[in-house]
Amino acid sequence: MSESIVRKLSESATVDKLSTEPLSGSNKIYIEGSRPDIQVAMREVIVTPTILQDGTEEPNEPVRVYDTSGPYTDPKADIDVRKGLFPLRNQWIEERDDTAFLDRYTSTYTNMRDSNIALENLRFEHNLKPRKAKAGKNVSQLHYARQGIITPEMEYIAIRENLALSEAEMEAAMRDQHPGENFGASTPKYITPEFVRSEVACGRAVIPANINHPEIEPMIIGRNFHVKINANIGNSAVTSSIEEEVEKLVWSTRWGGDTVMDLSTGNNIHETREWIVRNSPVPIGTVPIYQALEKVGGVAEDLTWEIFRDTLIEQAEQGVDYFTIHAGVLLRYVPMTAKRVTGIVSRGGSIMAKWCLAHHKENFLYTHFEDICEILKAYDVTFSLGDGLRPGSVADANDEAQFSELRTLGELTKIAWKHDVQVFIEGPGHVPMHMIKENMDEQLKHCHEAPFYTLGPLTTDISPGYDHFSSGIGAAMIGWYGCAMLCYVTPKEHLGLPNRDDVKQGIITYKIAAHAADLAKGHPGTQIRDNALSKARFEFRWEDQFNLSLDPDTARQFHDETLPKDSAKVAHFCSMCGPKFCSMKISQEVRDYAAQQELDEAEAAKKGMEEMSDKFKETGSEIYHEV
Amino acid sequence: MSESIVRKLSESATVDKLSTEPLSGSNKIYIEGSRPDIQVAMREVIVTPTILQDGTEEPNEPVRVYDTSGPYTDPKADIDVRKGLFPLRNQWIEERDDTAFLDRYTSTYTNMRDSNIALENLRFEHNLKPRKAKAGKNVSQLHYARQGIITPEMEYIAIRENLALSEAEMEAAMRDQHPGENFGASTPKYITPEFVRSEVACGRAVIPANINHPEIEPMIIGRNFHVKINANIGNSAVTSSIEEEVEKLVWSTRWGGDTVMDLSTGNNIHETREWIVRNSPVPIGTVPIYQALEKVGGVAEDLTWEIFRDTLIEQAEQGVDYFTIHAGVLLRYVPMTAKRVTGIVSRGGSIMAKWCLAHHKENFLYTHFEDICEILKAYDVTFSLGDGLRPGSVADANDEAQFSELRTLGELTKIAWKHDVQVFIEGPGHVPMHMIKENMDEQLKHCHEAPFYTLGPLTTDISPGYDHFSSGIGAAMIGWYGCAMLCYVTPKEHLGLPNRDDVKQGIITYKIAAHAADLAKGHPGTQIRDNALSKARFEFRWEDQFNLSLDPDTARQFHDETLPKDSAKVAHFCSMCGPKFCSMKISQEVRDYAAQQELDEAEAAKKGMEEMSDKFKETGSEIYHEV
Repeated sequence: MSESIVRKLSESATVDKLSTEPLSGSNKIYIEGSRPDIQVAMREVIVTPTILQDGTEEPNEPVRVYDTSGPYTDPKADIDVRKGLFPLRNQWIEERDDTAFLDRYTSTYTNMRDSNIALENLRFEHNLKPRKAKAGKNVSQLHYARQGIITPEMEYIAIRENLALSEAEMEAAMRDQHPGENFGASTPKYITPEFVRSEVACGRAVIPANINHPEIEPMIIGRNFHVKINANIGNSAVTSSIEEEVEKLVWSTRWGGDTVMDLSTGNNIHETREWIVRNSPVPIGTVPIYQALEKVGGVAEDLTWEIFRDTLIEQAEQGVDYFTIHAGVLLRYVPMTAKRVTGIVSRGGSIMAKWCLAHHKENFLYTHFEDICEILKAYDVTFSLGDGLRPGSVADANDEAQFSELRTLGELTKIAWKHDVQVFIEGPGHVPMHMIKENMDEQLKHCHEAPFYTLGPLTTDISPGYDHFSSGIGAAMIGWYGCAMLCYVTPKEHLGLPNRDDVKQGIITYKIAAHAADLAKGHPGTQIRDNALSKARFEFRWEDQFNLSLDPDTARQFHDETLPKDSAKVAHFCSMCGPKFCSMKISQEVRDYAAQQELDEAEAAKKGMEEMSDKFKETGSEIYHEV
Repeated sequence: MSESIVRKLSESATVDKLSTEPLSGSNKIYIEGSRPDIQVAMREVIVTPTILQDGTEEPNEPVRVYDTSGPYTDPKADIDVRKGLFPLRNQWIEERDDTAFLDRYTSTYTNMRDSNIALENLRFEHNLKPRKAKAGKNVSQLHYARQGIITPEMEYIAIRENLALSEAEMEAAMRDQHPGENFGASTPKYITPEFVRSEVACGRAVIPANINHPEIEPMIIGRNFHVKINANIGNSAVTSSIEEEVEKLVWSTRWGGDTVMDLSTGNNIHETREWIVRNSPVPIGTVPIYQALEKVGGVAEDLTWEIFRDTLIEQAEQGVDYFTIHAGVLLRYVPMTAKRVTGIVSRGGSIMAKWCLAHHKENFLYTHFEDICEILKAYDVTFSLGDGLRPGSVADANDEAQFSELRTLGELTKIAWKHDVQVFIEGPGHVPMHMIKENMDEQLKHCHEAPFYTLGPLTTDISPGYDHFSSGIGAAMIGWYGCAMLCYVTPKEHLGLPNRDDVKQGIITYKIAAHAADLAKGHPGTQIRDNALSKARFEFRWEDQFNLSLDPDTARQFHDETLPKDSAKVAHFCSMCGPKFCSMKISQEVRDYAAQQELDEAEAAKKGMEEMSDKFKETGSEIYHEV
């Protein structure tokens, strides 16, 4: 830490080489949309041919997979975290002609930080000026959608969600996929740009895309699209530096984080966030109340609307794509938590509860909600309505406090929509399996199908050290029931701040949960990857198996621990059963046998037909015989 | 390996010190039943007092947890793997007076191995002679149960399943637990020995307890009891030694394996198994066809009923508690698998399929099923009817081959029951979430509520390296739906043989799944541990939190990575949020505030009453006033 302060970050910052290598056995591809500057990034996994019994080769299609890693995994990209990513949406934003560059930042705090020469060494250096909607303009994707405008962002998303398959290819894929159970969702077989628009227009999906974050590859959050996952990063007063946080960001997107929340509560939050946003290909979310609290020295009672407002503008002008706002923690709900086993466990929730009680006033996020809408629509920041009263233990699940707040979030959703501001809803928490569906049903009902975004839920409290898993169970289930985005949990949950390995464990766990949910919903195209991997497995194409998996490096490493030689990767057995004892090998023999049997039967049938034919001829080739 | 052959194992074998240390913060306790030799082993986690605001202490109850680790975690026990465990059931078996010791083993193979001096260095040395039922006797727990006999095993289990709570204590606990959804199970609020007997009698539960494995602490598998988990160990031709396997056994029971399957397919299977059985406090299962195949040089076609029969007897006389028997793989079902993406993936299933096709004869396990029953009832070996045609990929889930076999397993269940032989049913495999319940429903229907025992199921195929998790999702769900035992999957699934760390990862993952299932079913007493841990978390009792968790070592280690000092374990914050920013701390303040408010209100009410009272007196203390 002390060292990184001495060096000037804007000159020295780098990202670990490991994070910028292409993922094993795949190519970065770009699919062009209706105009040359719509280049949808995707990863194409190379699949080797099937070797038939006679030694000939039968080609296998490459498999396109949804890719969140941005330019970092493109060997042709020039990665320099000191410069940030290419602002691919600049032209699209410019063309809409409803924004203007500001000469200086609107936020008092930003200007104060910018003029502090003591922070010189930490600052990200760039020439970008902040953008803001022109007076009277609303620049949200929801606003465009409601006017019937299909933005380039929407088209990008349609191609991305279809995994760049044609309609005919998708139809073919669906024949090899189980019909799912989607609990009343209305997912079409193929995603058109118009469908994306209509889902955004009715509020059932959001496209977090701040006009000051032109670097993102557009993505969508909604129950009729692939289930998404969020990774949390961020420093705390106790640990972590700016470079580490940028590293965690890149690492998170490499393994599949669809969005990243910067939950920093430590030093230099402002500067850390600037580095993160400028280098992020995915939407960035924050909880602005954390920083507001830092500004008042950590004393919740001292928070004011004015300080919070300045914080919102500060972050909106940096390019944060969505804000968690705990506006549903109402004064009258707070005492409902007093008898709980674990009270209020949301940081934002407890801050607001304390503020409400201290002043005996209604939550200022609630009373100023329309003011917040005014700010958000000028930058297209999406609301993530926080669940400040979520249960922190199985015992407190689905209680009065939790569901009271949820209903208030539903009211606020309607207010946000009145302003054409995008909104999604945060959910619990700790919930035993049999009580999860009620959460989804209540949310759909009271929040008018606005997307749900849940933390887990954890299905038991007794697993510290493994809460990524106990929450992953709940995440998979609620994703299946209709939850649009799953906030990851790492193995360090409840215990400490995650390191890089923890972040990866959390992400892969949640990618599994999200993919399992998509399969269960019957989401179009999801099973392609499963089928390709299983076919590779059955045919002992080990390298294909590794490359098609969510984490090729780990799969390969685990395999090599027991059978390290290269020859073992083409061998028709693995270390589990040894050479002469492989069910896959025996099964292939069974298949050959059955095929031979079918041939024999066909042969016998043919012979029978010939005999019949001969007999027919013998008997005079007449159809009808006299009795 | 070569070294272990030179040393004489019966003199040198040890078990790692790590495996025999008591689990952190808990005591081994023994609860006496109706007779002094029923001493039910359990672990009691010590919980420190709550420190109230005024500094006084409020005691917290210790928490008793189900414990599978046997004497290994008892510091008073004298552990010597060369001698094996104390045969605690010997007296019970003896008393029933329906068994006799054999002078020599019945199995030809056993006698051959025993007379081979080249194996001297590998052999477990003991004086125990094998037991067998006296002529005409059936020694199965099912047989006793049907005669109305409550065995000491059944009483042991009742105490164990109740976590040694009294009926009143259980009733109190249920007031702090969510009512569950158990899909028509008939779990009572309290488990009596008679209930155990009745569940065994109707076949809805099994007690795997070979008379030649008197060392086990009795346990039960059935949907009206705690969900159990199985850990697989065993060597293969490629890797692992006897000592390693014993080590894996002890390690598995330490972390919660309720049963252990020895799936060895490598060298010295017979001797390895002897070491495992003699040192196992939990039931041991095997797949006898693996060893039978070794005996015919790995050529499936060369298998015969006679070789298989000798293998069953060999293993039954060693003390194996349950056998996986793939008797449902019928000749006519085999071609149903030919068009599958992954054919037959069960080892046993593919061996039998190959045998059927090669001879064009019906599966000899099916044709000799009643002969097998005759053997099993003489030792009380339980059937685990194998799902040889389980799906090996999401694509193949719930297909004709799988469900055809399941219906045959249902027919075989009835035959086993006719012989008073205990039976449970194995299940899949790879199944997307929305198709899991159908598996449970079909199993209950066609197998007449015999316990279900499933591998996972894996909810996606794309997670090699993390299949413990993708299968753990399915395991938690099917456990909730009514599955009685979950067969663990390790991170090495599909890739290689698990090492000790993998075994632990698999077990903890599955303990979470099983516990989450128990919570969702509303199984009596399950939530006690969650509530105690969450209360400890809320009160910053870090050590209690660690000790109450499934893996105290990992929880403590993760915490210490960021806040290693001992003082941090009593600190009212953790590394996630830093000292001034803790939601738990703020929440406590909210609680104090609400309590004060309640006091104020009571005070105000009292004051109001007094005022009223004064007024009442002023106005003449009359109830009715004239208008």
